[in-house]
Amino acid sequence: MLEKKLSNPELAEKAEKEEEDYFDYFYDTPGSAPGTLSIEEDASPSTIILIDYNEAKASRTKIATPDECKLYLDTESVSWVDVQGLGNEDMWHKLASVFQLHPLVLEDVVNVPQRPKVEEHENQLVAIALMVLPKENRAGFESEQVSFVLGKHYLLTVQEKPEHDCFGPVRERIRNAKGQVRKHGADYLAYALLDAVIDGYFPVLEDYGERIEQLEDEVVLNPNRNTLQEIYKVRRELLALRRAIWPQRSAINALIRGQSYLISHEVQIYLRDCYDHVIQVLDILESYRELTSGLMDVYLSALSNKMNEVMKLLTVISTIFIPLTFIVGVYGMNFNPEASPFNMPELNWYWGYPAFWTGTIAIALGSIYFFWRRGWLQSFDSINKD
Amino acid sequence: MLEKKLSNPELAEKAEKEEEDYFDYFYDTPGSAPGTLSIEEDASPSTIILIDYNEAKASRTKIATPDECKLYLDTESVSWVDVQGLGNEDMWHKLASVFQLHPLVLEDVVNVPQRPKVEEHENQLVAIALMVLPKENRAGFESEQVSFVLGKHYLLTVQEKPEHDCFGPVRERIRNAKGQVRKHGADYLAYALLDAVIDGYFPVLEDYGERIEQLEDEVVLNPNRNTLQEIYKVRRELLALRRAIWPQRSAINALIRGQSYLISHEVQIYLRDCYDHVIQVLDILESYRELTSGLMDVYLSALSNKMNEVMKLLTVISTIFIPLTFIVGVYGMNFNPEASPFNMPELNWYWGYPAFWTGTIAIALGSIYFFWRRGWLQSFDSINKD
Amino acid sequence: MLEKKLSNPELAEKAEKEEEDYFDYFYDTPGSAPGTLSIEEDASPSTIILIDYNEAKASRTKIATPDECKLYLDTESVSWVDVQGLGNEDMWHKLASVFQLHPLVLEDVVNVPQRPKVEEHENQLVAIALMVLPKENRAGFESEQVSFVLGKHYLLTVQEKPEHDCFGPVRERIRNAKGQVRKHGADYLAYALLDAVIDGYFPVLEDYGERIEQLEDEVVLNPNRNTLQEIYKVRRELLALRRAIWPQRSAINALIRGQSYLISHEVQIYLRDCYDHVIQVLDILESYRELTSGLMDVYLSALSNKMNEVMKLLTVISTIFIPLTFIVGVYGMNFNPEASPFNMPELNWYWGYPAFWTGTIAIALGSIYFFWRRGWLQSFDSINKD
Amino acid sequence: MLEKKLSNPELAEKAEKEEEDYFDYFYDTPGSAPGTLSIEEDASPSTIILIDYNEAKASRTKIATPDECKLYLDTESVSWVDVQGLGNEDMWHKLASVFQLHPLVLEDVVNVPQRPKVEEHENQLVAIALMVLPKENRAGFESEQVSFVLGKHYLLTVQEKPEHDCFGPVRERIRNAKGQVRKHGADYLAYALLDAVIDGYFPVLEDYGERIEQLEDEVVLNPNRNTLQEIYKVRRELLALRRAIWPQRSAINALIRGQSYLISHEVQIYLRDCYDHVIQVLDILESYRELTSGLMDVYLSALSNKMNEVMKLLTVISTIFIPLTFIVGVYGMNFNPEASPFNMPELNWYWGYPAFWTGTIAIALGSIYFFWRRGWLQSFDSINKD
Amino acid sequence: MLEKKLSNPELAEKAEKEEEDYFDYFYDTPGSAPGTLSIEEDASPSTIILIDYNEAKASRTKIATPDECKLYLDTESVSWVDVQGLGNEDMWHKLASVFQLHPLVLEDVVNVPQRPKVEEHENQLVAIALMVLPKENRAGFESEQVSFVLGKHYLLTVQEKPEHDCFGPVRERIRNAKGQVRKHGADYLAYALLDAVIDGYFPVLEDYGERIEQLEDEVVLNPNRNTLQEIYKVRRELLALRRAIWPQRSAINALIRGQSYLISHEVQIYLRDCYDHVIQVLDILESYRELTSGLMDVYLSALSNKMNEVMKLLTVISTIFIPLTFIVGVYGMNFNPEASPFNMPELNWYWGYPAFWTGTIAIALGSIYFFWRRGWLQSFDSINKD
Repeated sequence: MLEKKLSNPELAEKAEKEEEDYFDYFYDTPGSAPGTLSIEEDASPSTIILIDYNEAKASRTKIATPDECKLYLDTESVSWVDVQGLGNEDMWHKLASVFQLHPLVLEDVVNVPQRPKVEEHENQLVAIALMVLPKENRAGFESEQVSFVLGKHYLLTVQEKPEHDCFGPVRERIRNAKGQVRKHGADYLAYALLDAVIDGYFPVLEDYGERIEQLEDEVVLNPNRNTLQEIYKVRRELLALRRAIWPQRSAINALIRGQSYLISHEVQIYLRDCYDHVIQVLDILESYRELTSGLMDVYLSALSNKMNEVMKLLTVISTIFIPLTFIVGVYGMNFNPEASPFNMPELNWYWGYPAFWTGTIAIALGSIYFFWRRGWLQSFDSINKD
Repeated sequence: MLEKKLSNPELAEKAEKEEEDYFDYFYDTPGSAPGTLSIEEDASPSTIILIDYNEAKASRTKIATPDECKLYLDTESVSWVDVQGLGNEDMWHKLASVFQLHPLVLEDVVNVPQRPKVEEHENQLVAIALMVLPKENRAGFESEQVSFVLGKHYLLTVQEKPEHDCFGPVRERIRNAKGQVRKHGADYLAYALLDAVIDGYFPVLEDYGERIEQLEDEVVLNPNRNTLQEIYKVRRELLALRRAIWPQRSAINALIRGQSYLISHEVQIYLRDCYDHVIQVLDILESYRELTSGLMDVYLSALSNKMNEVMKLLTVISTIFIPLTFIVGVYGMNFNPEASPFNMPELNWYWGYPAFWTGTIAIALGSIYFFWRRGWLQSFDSINKD
Repeated sequence: MLEKKLSNPELAEKAEKEEEDYFDYFYDTPGSAPGTLSIEEDASPSTIILIDYNEAKASRTKIATPDECKLYLDTESVSWVDVQGLGNEDMWHKLASVFQLHPLVLEDVVNVPQRPKVEEHENQLVAIALMVLPKENRAGFESEQVSFVLGKHYLLTVQEKPEHDCFGPVRERIRNAKGQVRKHGADYLAYALLDAVIDGYFPVLEDYGERIEQLEDEVVLNPNRNTLQEIYKVRRELLALRRAIWPQRSAINALIRGQSYLISHEVQIYLRDCYDHVIQVLDILESYRELTSGLMDVYLSALSNKMNEVMKLLTVISTIFIPLTFIVGVYGMNFNPEASPFNMPELNWYWGYPAFWTGTIAIALGSIYFFWRRGWLQSFDSINKD
Repeated sequence: MLEKKLSNPELAEKAEKEEEDYFDYFYDTPGSAPGTLSIEEDASPSTIILIDYNEAKASRTKIATPDECKLYLDTESVSWVDVQGLGNEDMWHKLASVFQLHPLVLEDVVNVPQRPKVEEHENQLVAIALMVLPKENRAGFESEQVSFVLGKHYLLTVQEKPEHDCFGPVRERIRNAKGQVRKHGADYLAYALLDAVIDGYFPVLEDYGERIEQLEDEVVLNPNRNTLQEIYKVRRELLALRRAIWPQRSAINALIRGQSYLISHEVQIYLRDCYDHVIQVLDILESYRELTSGLMDVYLSALSNKMNEVMKLLTVISTIFIPLTFIVGVYGMNFNPEASPFNMPELNWYWGYPAFWTGTIAIALGSIYFFWRRGWLQSFDSINKD
Repeated sequence: MLEKKLSNPELAEKAEKEEEDYFDYFYDTPGSAPGTLSIEEDASPSTIILIDYNEAKASRTKIATPDECKLYLDTESVSWVDVQGLGNEDMWHKLASVFQLHPLVLEDVVNVPQRPKVEEHENQLVAIALMVLPKENRAGFESEQVSFVLGKHYLLTVQEKPEHDCFGPVRERIRNAKGQVRKHGADYLAYALLDAVIDGYFPVLEDYGERIEQLEDEVVLNPNRNTLQEIYKVRRELLALRRAIWPQRSAINALIRGQSYLISHEVQIYLRDCYDHVIQVLDILESYRELTSGLMDVYLSALSNKMNEVMKLLTVISTIFIPLTFIVGVYGMNFNPEASPFNMPELNWYWGYPAFWTGTIAIALGSIYFFWRRGWLQSFDSINKD
């Protein structure tokens, strides 16, 4: 195995890169105290951006240490603290004390990736969501944890990696006072951001829809070894996508049904819309999964069909030539014609050789007619390249 | 792949056309404000038809701008405003203000196709349904979104495309005061229209029933490559149908269980009947899906059976002739009879050649008898055209 | 396809007949008014039989027009009105007015087949059930809708076809005052009849049990093309049976849980027994479905096994004779022994020919021993007729 | 089919015997009155044993007619009436009147086998359970219905067949006043007996565990036709076992949740333990079923692997010898060397024949090297006996 | 079978060792009294360690007989009694009397392995959990029962085997007063230990994740017989893992929802986190199971692909050489050229032999071109080692 792998280094490497992500998960060292933070060495340094707005005005500040947030938290205006990148442990403990985060909440926010969920804590609603981004060339997707901590007048969001930011359009809407975002509180902001996260699944799904369509063509016109691998890869990634979105369904449902005073009735109506989108994503995923499993069946049948064609070719050639080879063998025998008048007198006949060819060609044509009647010959036109 | 596709242009094109529809869905640009309308360039212009009726009289008006509806909305008579075609954004904003539609409702109605659902808003019940129409020649189905906004004395319906209209018979019943439609309020009208939408699934199902029956015959009498593709296509389309009808089940169930004052008790009994029809559609779909998956198994077995036949033919021919070819080879050897009395004296025997043929034919007949006893020969009659 | 069909007319015809029934269903023309009746041209004319009884006496009357029932409906004695055959529309409207049937109830009773269900209407309980009857020679089953309308002192039953009557034994029990039927009210009668309908599933199931046992033997001893079709047919019919009985489960459950004043507590205990029978039917159906799906797997493996045998035969024959044919070819070459002492001196050896045969037979025996050791030869005994 | 069956009489007979049991069920003649008893001709005669005990003393009496029980039923001590064998109808009617059994209860007890269940009747709790016993040599299991009727101070148990008795250990515990059975009432006795019935499933499961382990070895080391049949048989029997134990789960759950005054709180705790055992049985069954379905996949792959080996052998032999046979054919041609210097001068070369052998052997070795490099030759070692 | 097994002794032995564990379960002898203890002969002797702590101090005592615990149980400080190894029956009865254990609880704790569960008893909460440990070299996992009995101020834990101890880190945290464990009561300790048990599943899962990744590479690059067995083994072990963790989900859920006064609100929040971990484990298991079942499909297709390659090689060789062999046979015939001018005059032509070779090579090249166009030749490069 290992040798093989090394002999196909580029393939192995590619496999390495692609397969690592999808079924990743965080787990504590068994027995460690709850609330232990575990930040990877190479985590991006954190950037903290505070946007403070009400209907009248909006300001944007880049913040150096979490303590600076304190000023904004108690005001009536909405304060959105956006942390990008997981940074270092020290910063997190400061942040936790500013926002009075429960140790388990801090753990969920920092030790990524966690399973998406919604939890109610005293004066806070905590939501863990998973954002996805399509890779280039329909080569799958990347995922990133986004955490929300919603208070009465503030929203703390944490994005795992600073390079992908799906909150841009919302930030734009706040700056331009476009839409309703400036007219509502922090709960509406949380909804708007969550909706942006969920809507991010659709472009990824679209990629898969196109890959499946392509596979449908390929499996019929030109099934080959790569088709199979591609089908398996798509199934694998759809499975991973489902694992990401499924818990968000119940999380958002919990928000809608929940009686938290932090979410106004008006925003619950908007969340219902967001819930509809999640259901739609799940619906499409389910359909895609059934389609790929159907594709696998079609692929297997296509293989069997191909094998049938190969066997038919062999059978046709053999059936025509094996009897003929027997006949020519007969006339290659060395029975001594002089020993007896019965011994191969054909060899001395005047029309012997032409008669042999006549018989031979008749047998060959007969066989060909037999196969043509059964339609075997026509089907060779369709033997495809493998 | 691409070359192949181009070399089969008509096939590729057909695939293009057919496969686009079934798994279509609308999604917002991630991060866009809720309530953003998105009407395709080539959407049909809207026609608005208002039918106002009570038990005594019924009038039909074609309306130019939504504002004209205002007159009718406050009267006691039932006002049915039917919008056909998605038209332009401007018209929708006017309509929204006349009917006081929530921005999210407007979005659901205009940004098609949405997932079917029922939502209660202040003074309004909103239902999104999906209508289906059989294509000609059992070539699948088309679908179209139909939206209902039910108020106390009015019903607003929106049809995505003006060319398909399944509301004709109901309009007829209103004009002729046939049945009970004129005796009831807007809720009964909504039921009658919804029922027409649901009953529209049956002719589509009937097409599939017939396609499956045809496939059942084909898979037994003459399984070929197209059979497989057809089975896959039917599975795919049944899946799409199920995706369309499934959410309507819970939507209508919500209407029946719901306590909305907009739906009278009497109409709830009728809705129960409509719910029964949805269940029946789902039942049949489920049966059809199981049948197609059974068909796939039968197809695979049929392929194996065919391969068996091909292999048997090869084996029969080879088993008969390969030993004989060996024998004729023996008597074609050039051992020098003069060098030794043991060297192929058969070649000089008086009855040598006849004895050879006797032996040969005996061996051939023996083989044939062997195969005939095992029934292999009979089965070649059933090798079908592929 | 068509030609094939015509060339197998008896098969095609058989298919026609058998496949029509099982997935039949009734649907309205989309848009038609609820309550529209649709009786087939060739429906059997109705016979109405009224049986009126209490503990003391029982009378049986054949009734010409529904109006005659009126006399009996208000008395304290139980009046059982049994309508056999769907007759004509006119009769139904009269019946509806006598029994005060809701238009939707009338539709369910007349437009057969409907999905089984139980509905409560004012003063009436309506139940739709599906009766099944085994066909002769285990050739599947026939089904027929039976409808019940239960009032305080009366029971209206409607049987789709007059020729099958599963109510005979109950009628007998009423006449002979056997069992408890005369001591209870109309609700007990409804139970007794419903129980007769449900118990009618068992003989049908027994047929399938036997067909499956037969298939189990066949798939092992002698798998062939018909086995496959038979398995598919059994699966198809079990699916149809399940579709018939499944909704009756929830219908009867609704009766038991329901609080209708029309069903006494005593009869609810009996209904619980009836419910147990439905569950038992479903249990058995589920087991049978799993068995048939297991049979399909066994069948596919049996095919593979057979193919293995065929390939082994070919391989054995080829492996023995192809090398030998090479050898005889060698000694058929015309190298000139006179041109060189190296040129095929074997041909002139004294023991050349016997040596050739010794070698040949040794090689053949060696091959045979090789295959015998691996057990290939023994397995040919088991190649069965196809 | 029939002939085949007769030609394998011992196999057919074995099949007869084994397959009858597992999916057996009782059903009434449709339309018969509820409560009709149906005892098979060859039912074992009943033996009635009454054990009467309290904490102080225990007595055991063999009873001739049910009426003798009356004396014991009203006393405070626990009376356990154990009926073994279904006997005759007359006895049952007497028993029913002594214990005041509802006709439906009597039917459930006598018309075996019924679906396991628990039902509450006035002053009585009725439980139907299914006992299983492993057959010898891991040849499946036998099942027998055990019915319980629990009253305030008595327990009536009915065992279908007298020969299997799983109540022995409990009887022993009563006699020896071992454990807690003598300290509690009839409800504890019912629990103890039910627990004995449930625990009887474990030895049967153990048999299946071992059969599956054996099959796992067989399918890898030596897959053959019997393996397949055995897998199917195990699946079939596990299905039957599941059908027996599944309804007992809900039955016992009903006992635990139930509010019957006949079951004390203390005994409910014990029943919870019994429920745990049922769940464990179901868990194991489910695992076994998944394992057997995995085994079927492995078996199919093993078949494919074997076919691959067979084909490879054929291909290796053919690829080596077919070209060589062509070459020897060339030098067997009769082109006249005298007619032209181009006509087969090789035949007259001094080194012609040695050169031929050199070439031939080189080609053969080349092919063998080709196959050896691809590892085909090594794999023949593993071709197993079939 | 047996012989085979013996001839592969190391394989058989390995199978013995590995397969025993995963589906192990404890069951009582049917009919035995509840509460009967059953300790295996070779059970490890018990070690009892008592750790008594409060926020201020912590002490650790090794205890000889259970009676010594009595002193600690009534104090306000938390007493953790950890029993390692199942020891002997005598000790258990003493322990039961000290802790006032219900006989059924004692049975569950001692008769291992039981199904995980949580039960509330008077003044005690009893939890049965299953701990898993990865074996070396990713060779599966071992499992061990861990039981918890939680009282007001004490926690009794029982570990089946003393050699594996996953409680070390928690013990450390108590000694060092690290984290919050010293600040809370016995309920927090129970949570901390349960969390350690659950977190122990993740390293095991990680092993499986890597095995599956390896299998994914293997099935594509080099599918062979071992791949199949490995896939089956992984499926089998995932099934066993699922059987272990699944009941813990509902057990912990019961703890969270439960209203036991023994668990404080604060600790319930921590348990929610623990529940999240269980769900995560189940999620991953489910994904892995779907992946392995997909792998099986890929493996089967890979087998079919390989067979296709083998058949193609045979077909290519046969198609090229069989016709040529026929031709050389023709010119090996002995028709007498002197008997007639038609008899094989080619043999005497001047360019006869060169013409023969020209034709032969043309035919061979034509066939090769035919196969090259269809891409058959290229694909032989990819025939892998088996």
